[in-house]
Amino acid sequence: MIVTLTPNPAVDVTYRIGTHLPGDTNRVLEVQRRPGGKGVNVTRVLAALEVPARAVLPLGGDAGRWLGGALDVPFDAVPISGENRTTVTVTGDGHPTVYAEPGPELSEAEWAAFARRLAEGLAGAKLLVVSGSLPRGAAPDLVADWVRIAHHAGVRTLVDASGPALLAAARAGAVVKPNHAELLAATSAADETSGVATLLRLGAQLVVVSRGADGIAAYTPCGVLTVPAVPGVHGNPTGAGDAATAGLAAALATGRPLLEALRTAAALGAAAVLRPVAGEVDIPAYQRFLNGATA
Amino acid sequence: MIVTLTPNPAVDVTYRIGTHLPGDTNRVLEVQRRPGGKGVNVTRVLAALEVPARAVLPLGGDAGRWLGGALDVPFDAVPISGENRTTVTVTGDGHPTVYAEPGPELSEAEWAAFARRLAEGLAGAKLLVVSGSLPRGAAPDLVADWVRIAHHAGVRTLVDASGPALLAAARAGAVVKPNHAELLAATSAADETSGVATLLRLGAQLVVVSRGADGIAAYTPCGVLTVPAVPGVHGNPTGAGDAATAGLAAALATGRPLLEALRTAAALGAAAVLRPVAGEVDIPAYQRFLNGATA
Repeated sequence: MIVTLTPNPAVDVTYRIGTHLPGDTNRVLEVQRRPGGKGVNVTRVLAALEVPARAVLPLGGDAGRWLGGALDVPFDAVPISGENRTTVTVTGDGHPTVYAEPGPELSEAEWAAFARRLAEGLAGAKLLVVSGSLPRGAAPDLVADWVRIAHHAGVRTLVDASGPALLAAARAGAVVKPNHAELLAATSAADETSGVATLLRLGAQLVVVSRGADGIAAYTPCGVLTVPAVPGVHGNPTGAGDAATAGLAAALATGRPLLEALRTAAALGAAAVLRPVAGEVDIPAYQRFLNGATA
Repeated sequence: MIVTLTPNPAVDVTYRIGTHLPGDTNRVLEVQRRPGGKGVNVTRVLAALEVPARAVLPLGGDAGRWLGGALDVPFDAVPISGENRTTVTVTGDGHPTVYAEPGPELSEAEWAAFARRLAEGLAGAKLLVVSGSLPRGAAPDLVADWVRIAHHAGVRTLVDASGPALLAAARAGAVVKPNHAELLAATSAADETSGVATLLRLGAQLVVVSRGADGIAAYTPCGVLTVPAVPGVHGNPTGAGDAATAGLAAALATGRPLLEALRTAAALGAAAVLRPVAGEVDIPAYQRFLNGATA
């Protein structure tokens, strides 16, 4: 069983329009609403792989009620008094335009309840995946608390976060999985090698860096392993990182070798690019990619 | 008692952002959610005037549940299986950008239930106000049906609609209140006089044309009455038309003279411009304007 933690889940609304007219009225041709947030997407990919997984997330307000009804994966909701955020993505004739609500602020008591629920949910789990941004006003050290709760329960941790939360996760000894840009931004490093060195020095157990078309690399204190990206894959990169995280999680939770974990992550990331929606993967393509096929 | 009918109510969401970045991610600084739709706004202004009013509207889905909880005026909801629309307005450094969802399609059975509920709600009413667009797939003649139901119950009607629905309302003998542009568009007329002549010929009891800064005119088969706009009023014109409709409705429902009705409409329209939100009016300013003051 893998437990995922989504600190700031979202109602992901996608509006399809014709020509985008900023400063004017745009008729929406098609509306899609989906539960979102990186941890939710990871859970969905794990479910598609038939890996037992359960999401832990704060839900509140009308948006939270909607999320609770619409989530298609097992989950534990921690009730909060605030309202979950909505993210509106407008797809028209150009690059998508995104409007991201800030999301709720949780009280200290709500975060304490969240930690208790997480501790209960970790009984019997193999891995905790913490994925996505923190809500407004949340201290980055919350991530370190969650990692420590898991380690205390004998559960390994994988954290996909950015900025101070990434540094806090490294300090707490998690496996961290930034992408190349997040790594440089959080560590203020000039290149990948020195950024990774910072995270390993802080205490990260393993640093996995996703590099998009340049593949994926895993750095341990003893060296680096790299696998290339699946060549020739074109489509929607949204959610590819979450699919790669799910692949990594599935392999780590079952104790498979690191090289196999990276290959699984790369193949799943590529299989997500073939699907228009974050949290979905093309499973037959994933299996072909895993066997060395190109797109 | 005035009954208002909102065929296509909306959740009006306003996002305040900084610089608008189309094709990029925009952090939302502030979120406001309000029940919307022209009939809802009219009801809200009537409530501010302490005129007894009740809204009739179709509600469905999560958006409908939210609307039912958030509406601050008396209402009769007709349950529908579809989901009410949401309208997102983005206010940043330029003109507001609006994304308008299409809204639900109602079945014939749902429209029949709607008509029955309307007929019940009209008992003892002085006036029916039909205001705003029809949902997708709704026949414009529905507006004529609602007007006939009201006339059958001895209740006068005021319709603020556009396009074929405006023509249908005129045919059914309603008082119609297009703005200048809607009048020309619906009647394919070159000028106001010939557009109004078309509506009167179709059967409209009275045609009231709102002209923004050029005031408001009422055309009867016997002639025209005009009142100027309140001079020097600057602010948010959204909702000024709905406030003017409410003023007209309040005066017509109590049988006051047409000139007084127009003056009330003009003063309320101006008092709405002073408020940032559709459906709100500055009541002290309204009373000053009614007594001849300028802004």
